[in-house]
Amino acid sequence: MTQSPTQIQPNQIRPIQVASFISGQWHAAAGGQEIRDASYGLPVAYVSSEGVDFGAALHYGRTVGGRNLRRTTFHERARMLRALAVYLNERKAEFNALSHLTGATRRDNLVDIDGGIGTLFSYSSMARRDLPDQKFFVEDDVNPLGKGGTFFGRHVMVPREGVALHINAFNFPVWGMLEKIAPNLIAGVPAIVKPASQTSYVTEAVVRAIHESGLLPEGALQLICGSTGDLFDHLEEQDTVTFTGSAATASKLKVHPNIVRRGVPFNTEADSLNCIVLGETVTPDAPEFALFVREVVNEMTSKAGQKCTAIRRVIVPESRVEEVAAAIRERLAGITMGDPSREDVRMGPLVGASQRDDVADVLARLSAEGEVLVGGGQHPELLGGDWEAGAFLAPALLLARDPLNAHAAHELEAFGPVATLMPYSGLEMAAELARMGRGSLAGSIVTHHRDEARDLFFGMASAHGRILVLNRDDAKESTGHGSPLPQLKHGGPGRAGGGEELGGLRAVKHYLQRTALQADPTTMTAITGEYVRGAAVREDVVHPFRKNFEQLQVGDSLLTPRRTVTEADISAFAGLSGDRFYAHTDEIAAQDSLFGKRVAHGYFVLSAAAGLFVDPGVGPVLANYGLEGLRFTEPVGFGDTIRARLTVQSKTAKETREGETPTGVVKWHVDVTNQNDVLVATYSILTLVAREQ
Amino acid sequence: MTQSPTQIQPNQIRPIQVASFISGQWHAAAGGQEIRDASYGLPVAYVSSEGVDFGAALHYGRTVGGRNLRRTTFHERARMLRALAVYLNERKAEFNALSHLTGATRRDNLVDIDGGIGTLFSYSSMARRDLPDQKFFVEDDVNPLGKGGTFFGRHVMVPREGVALHINAFNFPVWGMLEKIAPNLIAGVPAIVKPASQTSYVTEAVVRAIHESGLLPEGALQLICGSTGDLFDHLEEQDTVTFTGSAATASKLKVHPNIVRRGVPFNTEADSLNCIVLGETVTPDAPEFALFVREVVNEMTSKAGQKCTAIRRVIVPESRVEEVAAAIRERLAGITMGDPSREDVRMGPLVGASQRDDVADVLARLSAEGEVLVGGGQHPELLGGDWEAGAFLAPALLLARDPLNAHAAHELEAFGPVATLMPYSGLEMAAELARMGRGSLAGSIVTHHRDEARDLFFGMASAHGRILVLNRDDAKESTGHGSPLPQLKHGGPGRAGGGEELGGLRAVKHYLQRTALQADPTTMTAITGEYVRGAAVREDVVHPFRKNFEQLQVGDSLLTPRRTVTEADISAFAGLSGDRFYAHTDEIAAQDSLFGKRVAHGYFVLSAAAGLFVDPGVGPVLANYGLEGLRFTEPVGFGDTIRARLTVQSKTAKETREGETPTGVVKWHVDVTNQNDVLVATYSILTLVAREQ
Repeated sequence: MTQSPTQIQPNQIRPIQVASFISGQWHAAAGGQEIRDASYGLPVAYVSSEGVDFGAALHYGRTVGGRNLRRTTFHERARMLRALAVYLNERKAEFNALSHLTGATRRDNLVDIDGGIGTLFSYSSMARRDLPDQKFFVEDDVNPLGKGGTFFGRHVMVPREGVALHINAFNFPVWGMLEKIAPNLIAGVPAIVKPASQTSYVTEAVVRAIHESGLLPEGALQLICGSTGDLFDHLEEQDTVTFTGSAATASKLKVHPNIVRRGVPFNTEADSLNCIVLGETVTPDAPEFALFVREVVNEMTSKAGQKCTAIRRVIVPESRVEEVAAAIRERLAGITMGDPSREDVRMGPLVGASQRDDVADVLARLSAEGEVLVGGGQHPELLGGDWEAGAFLAPALLLARDPLNAHAAHELEAFGPVATLMPYSGLEMAAELARMGRGSLAGSIVTHHRDEARDLFFGMASAHGRILVLNRDDAKESTGHGSPLPQLKHGGPGRAGGGEELGGLRAVKHYLQRTALQADPTTMTAITGEYVRGAAVREDVVHPFRKNFEQLQVGDSLLTPRRTVTEADISAFAGLSGDRFYAHTDEIAAQDSLFGKRVAHGYFVLSAAAGLFVDPGVGPVLANYGLEGLRFTEPVGFGDTIRARLTVQSKTAKETREGETPTGVVKWHVDVTNQNDVLVATYSILTLVAREQ
Repeated sequence: MTQSPTQIQPNQIRPIQVASFISGQWHAAAGGQEIRDASYGLPVAYVSSEGVDFGAALHYGRTVGGRNLRRTTFHERARMLRALAVYLNERKAEFNALSHLTGATRRDNLVDIDGGIGTLFSYSSMARRDLPDQKFFVEDDVNPLGKGGTFFGRHVMVPREGVALHINAFNFPVWGMLEKIAPNLIAGVPAIVKPASQTSYVTEAVVRAIHESGLLPEGALQLICGSTGDLFDHLEEQDTVTFTGSAATASKLKVHPNIVRRGVPFNTEADSLNCIVLGETVTPDAPEFALFVREVVNEMTSKAGQKCTAIRRVIVPESRVEEVAAAIRERLAGITMGDPSREDVRMGPLVGASQRDDVADVLARLSAEGEVLVGGGQHPELLGGDWEAGAFLAPALLLARDPLNAHAAHELEAFGPVATLMPYSGLEMAAELARMGRGSLAGSIVTHHRDEARDLFFGMASAHGRILVLNRDDAKESTGHGSPLPQLKHGGPGRAGGGEELGGLRAVKHYLQRTALQADPTTMTAITGEYVRGAAVREDVVHPFRKNFEQLQVGDSLLTPRRTVTEADISAFAGLSGDRFYAHTDEIAAQDSLFGKRVAHGYFVLSAAAGLFVDPGVGPVLANYGLEGLRFTEPVGFGDTIRARLTVQSKTAKETREGETPTGVVKWHVDVTNQNDVLVATYSILTLVAREQ
C-alpha cells in the first residue's frame, strides 16, 4: 500500500467548525450542519452562518472593499492577483490534504487547486497585456456620430459600484472561487463567496490563507459558509450574482424579487448533459478511436463524474457501438477506486452519501429506459476507503438503442460516473442528438476528417458553449473535453443556464458598466485619455521625440515639413525594395490600373512619412515596434507633395523588472495628407519610450 | 389655422380591427379592447388576439422562418434590410397619418418612423462593413492553448435556432419594432413582435407594408396584436425575449417558469429617472446655459414626455436654480399644444386618458414632496384637439429643495411632461444625485469645461447606460439627450432593467450563440475559413498573385526566395526615406541603442518583404490598400538574410455596383523570418483582387 504524508489517516480526522469571514472578521457559529468525509464517513466539519449580518456584509463590501479596489488600476490589481497566486501556490499542500476528504484524488486536486491558482495567473497576465494601466478602459473604436467631425460616441467601461456575490457548487471548492473572483478583482469589484456547505471547509482554508497573505485590500473578499439567510433581501442595483450548481436551485434564486426588481445581473452556469461524438470516418484502428475511449473514461471517472462539463452522452456511429462499448468496458476495468489520497487510486468516492444516493436513484431511472452495459451489481474492490460508510459508486455505462426517442438519457443527469451510449446513423442525426441536450456547456467531436469536423461543429454549435475537436494532431496539447480555460468562454445556452464565465476579458466586463459616451473630440480625449481625431492638439517648439514618457501628453502633435514625391524617388524605391509592381513602374500597364497612372508604393509613403517625422538623434524614443490599422486612402502620384501629422494617441507605462530601463508604450496617430489636404494614409505606430523612473 | 393633407380630420376617423400576422396569415378577431385617438377621444381601433395559436406561431418561426434566414449570409440579410428600408421610406406618409392619432407630432414621427427606418439602414451598413459575407463569424483573435502550436481556441458566433420575441412599449410603435428586428434579422433569427395594444394599429400598418413588400423570407416576421395568451408557455431554450416598458411589467414577465427553467435570455429596457446636470462653471450668458434649457424643455415636451430616456431630474448648481427655473418657464410658455398633426403644434396629448390619469396621479404625489414651479392650475389653450375628450396634459416643473433627502423625485416616474429641479453644491453631490436614480438609460452633462465634464462623467458612469456631454462644440451635431443611436448601447443598469440594445453589432450578438472552438490549426482553418498559423498550407507553381478571387483559397501560400540585407541597403534606404534615426545610421550611438548595433529600418524590412513576394506584372491583384497588426519581433542586422511567407488568411467578396469591376478583399498573413528561422516581422495585408463575376 502506497503511503505519503498527505494521505488521509482516518484516525486523525478531527471535525472543525467552519467560519465565515464577514466585514473583516471571522465568525464561527457553534454546531450547524454536520459534514462527513467522503471515503470513511467520519465527521469533518460543522457549518453554520448563524449570527452573520448579511446586510452589513454587503454594505461593507460595497463601501470599504469597493472603494479600496477602485483606488487601484487594472495593472495594480493584476499584480496583486499574481502575488496572490504565487502565495497560494506555496501553501498548496494544506489545501490538497483537506481536499482529499471531499473525495478528490491527486489528479482531481490538480484541476481544482492548481487549476484555480493557474486562473489567477492567467487573469493577471491577460489584464496586464490587454488592459491599460488605468481605472477604466475604452472598448472598440470611436464612432463618428455626424459628418462635421464635432460629435463622437465611444463605449467606456467603469467598475460597477456593488459586490460580486458568487454562489458556488460543491465540486470545485477552490477553482470555483478563484475563477470567479479573478475577473471581479481585476474589474475593481469586491466579492462575497458562498461555497456549498458540503466542501466549504476547503474554501475556508483558502480564504484564511488569502487573509493571512495580506495581499488583498480590506473588504475585497468575504466568505459565507452555511446558509445565505436574508442575504438576497439586501442586494442592490450595482451588485452582481453568479451561480454555479443545479438548474433547479438556479431557478429558485434568480426569481428573488430583489434580483428581478433591481435588475441585478444573475449569471447561471448549470450542469448539462454534455456529449461527445465519434466521427463516422474513425475506424477502430485509427488513433482517434483510442483518444475517444480515453476521453470518455476520463470524463466519467475524474472527480467521480461530478463535473458540470462531464460527458453524459456518448454518440457513436451505430456500426461502432459494440466496439466502443467493449473498449470503454475494458478501460474502465483498469480504473482503481478507493481512498483518493492514495497515489494508486484513479477514482475517489462521491462527495457524500446523499449525493451517492441521488446518483443511484437517477441511474435506476436511466436503467428503466436504457440498457446497462457496465456497472451495477457487485461493487469493485477498494484501495482504502469504506464501501459502507463512504460514498463510493462504481462507474456505469448505459445504452439507449433508440436515442431519438429516448427521454431520460437527454433529460436526467446522474451527477456521477454515469454515461449513456447513443448510436447514430448519419452526421445530421449525430448533431440532432447533440442538440437534444437542449443546451450544453461542452461538447466534443473526435475525428481527423476536417469536413466531418466542420459539419458536426456547425450542426452542434447553437446548443454548445464550447466544442473540442480532438484528433491525432492536437491530442498531445489538448486540455480535454471537461476543462474550462481562462481564455475561452465557459457557459452554455438553455439547460446549461445561458450564462458566461471566463472567456478572457469577457468575464471582467461582467463587473464593469458599459457607458456610451457622446461628446466633441476634445472632451472625449480629455475623458478617455485617448486622442480622437479633431480634438485640440498641442504643438511645441520641442520635437515630441525629444520628450520622455512622462513629458509626452495625449494630444501632443507635430505637423511635419512637406516633401514632393518624384519619379526618381519611386524608381529608386522600386530598385531598393525589389517591389516592381506594374502600377509603380510600368507607364503603359499603369494606365489601365486602378489608379490610371503610375503611383508611389504605399510603403514608400510610409517610409517617407517616417523620414519627415523622425528626429534622428539619440533621445527617449527607443524603437518603433509596431503599426496598426494602416489604410492607404488616396494614391500618391509623381509631383504630389505630402506631409504628416504625428499626434500622441495614448500612453501606457510598462512594468519594469529588476535592472531594466523603465519604459512606456506611446501610440501615435499618423495622418499623411497631400497638397490638397486630402488624407492619403492613416495609421497608428507603437513606440517604446524611456521613462524618468 | 394650418392645414395639410395628413392632418387629423376627426369626422373621418373610422375604427379598424387590428389583426395579428401569424404563421403567414392575418388573423383578425372581432371586437376586443377599444382604443381611442389621443386628441379627440374617438374610437380608432379594436384589438384582440383571440384565436391565435401561440405555440404554432413559435414553432412556425423556429422552423420556417429560422431555416429561411439561416440559408442566407450576413450580407444577403443586410441587403434585404436595406431594400426594406427603401421600401418603407416610400410608404411613410401612411404611417405618419396613423401615428398622429396616437398623439405624436410631426417631430415625434421623425423620431419614431424616420428613426426606425434609419436604424434599418444603419444595421445594413454595419453588417456589410463589419461582418463577413458568411453564415457565421469569428470573434476576436485565435488563442494559442499550448506552446507546441497544435492546439488553439477561438470564439465562433452562429445564429440561435429560436425566435426573437419582442414585447414593445406604446410610445414608439415603429422604431420600437424596427430597432429590435434589425439586429435579429441580421443575425439570421426570425422575430415575433408584440406591440402595446394602445398603438398597435401603427405597428400593424408597418407589418402589412413589410408583408406586401415581399422582401422578407417567409416566417421571418410575425405580429401579435392583443394579449400574449399562453405564448410564454411555449418558449424554448433557443428563443430570446426582449422587453421594453415598465419595470413592473418586466418583473412579472421575466420570472415566467419557462424563461427561468429554460435559460431563455430576457433583455429588459425599462423607464428610468434620467437626469441632466448643468456644470458649475456654466454662467447664464454662456452658450451652454441656453443649450441646457433647450435640452430640458425638448425632453419634457417631445412625445409629451413619454420617452423612457426623457429627462426627469434636472440637476443644477444651487446658485442657478432661480435662473434655470425662469428660463425653463419662459421656454415652456412658447410650446404650443394641440392636435399633433398640425404643423404649428409642438406638443401633442399623451397617448390616452388612462396614461394621462396615471401621470396626473404621480404628479400629485411628486407635488406632495416638492414644490410646483410650472404647471398645474388652468390648462393652456389648445391648437386643435379636445381638452375634455383627448389626453392632454400641460408640462410641469417641480423643485426638490433638499434633493439628497427626496424620495419621490428619485423613485416615482411620471411618464409624461414632468421634471424636477434639484439644486446641488459641489460636483460630488451632483454625481451622487445622478446616481440616486439607481440606474438610468441616459444622462447628460452640459459644460464646456473638460475637467468638469470628466469628473461628472466618472461620478455618474456606473449608474448610466449612455452619457451625453453637450456644449458649444458639439451642439450643432448633437443628436440629443433622449435619442438612442444604432452605434451606441441603449440600456442602463438597475432600475433601467440592466439590458442592452443597439450598440452596433452587440445587439446582433444577442441572437447568436458564442461557441468556443478548440482544435488543431488545420481543423480550425477548415471550420472558420480563416487561416491559423501552423495550419497545413497549399503551395503551387502558380504565384498566388496570378490567381483571381475565386481561384485563391484560404491556406494558399508562397515561401519567397531569400534576400541578404546589406549596409548599402540601409544607407540607401535612409537616404531615400529621409529616416536617419541613429539606430540605423550612427555606428557609435547605435551601440548604446536597444539593439546594440546598427539595424535595418522596420519599413525597409516591410518593403523588402513586398519586393520578395510581389509578382510585378498585370494580374488579378489590383492594389494593397491596408495593413494590420504589424509587429517587429526581432531586429534585422547587416548581413542577415530574410525571406517571407505569404498565406491567404481570409477572403470577402465585395458588393459590386452597376458598371464596377467585381472584386473581393483578400487578407494575407505575412511572416518574415531570418536565416535562423526566427520571426522578424509579422502582419496582415489587405489587397483588392479581381473576381471572375
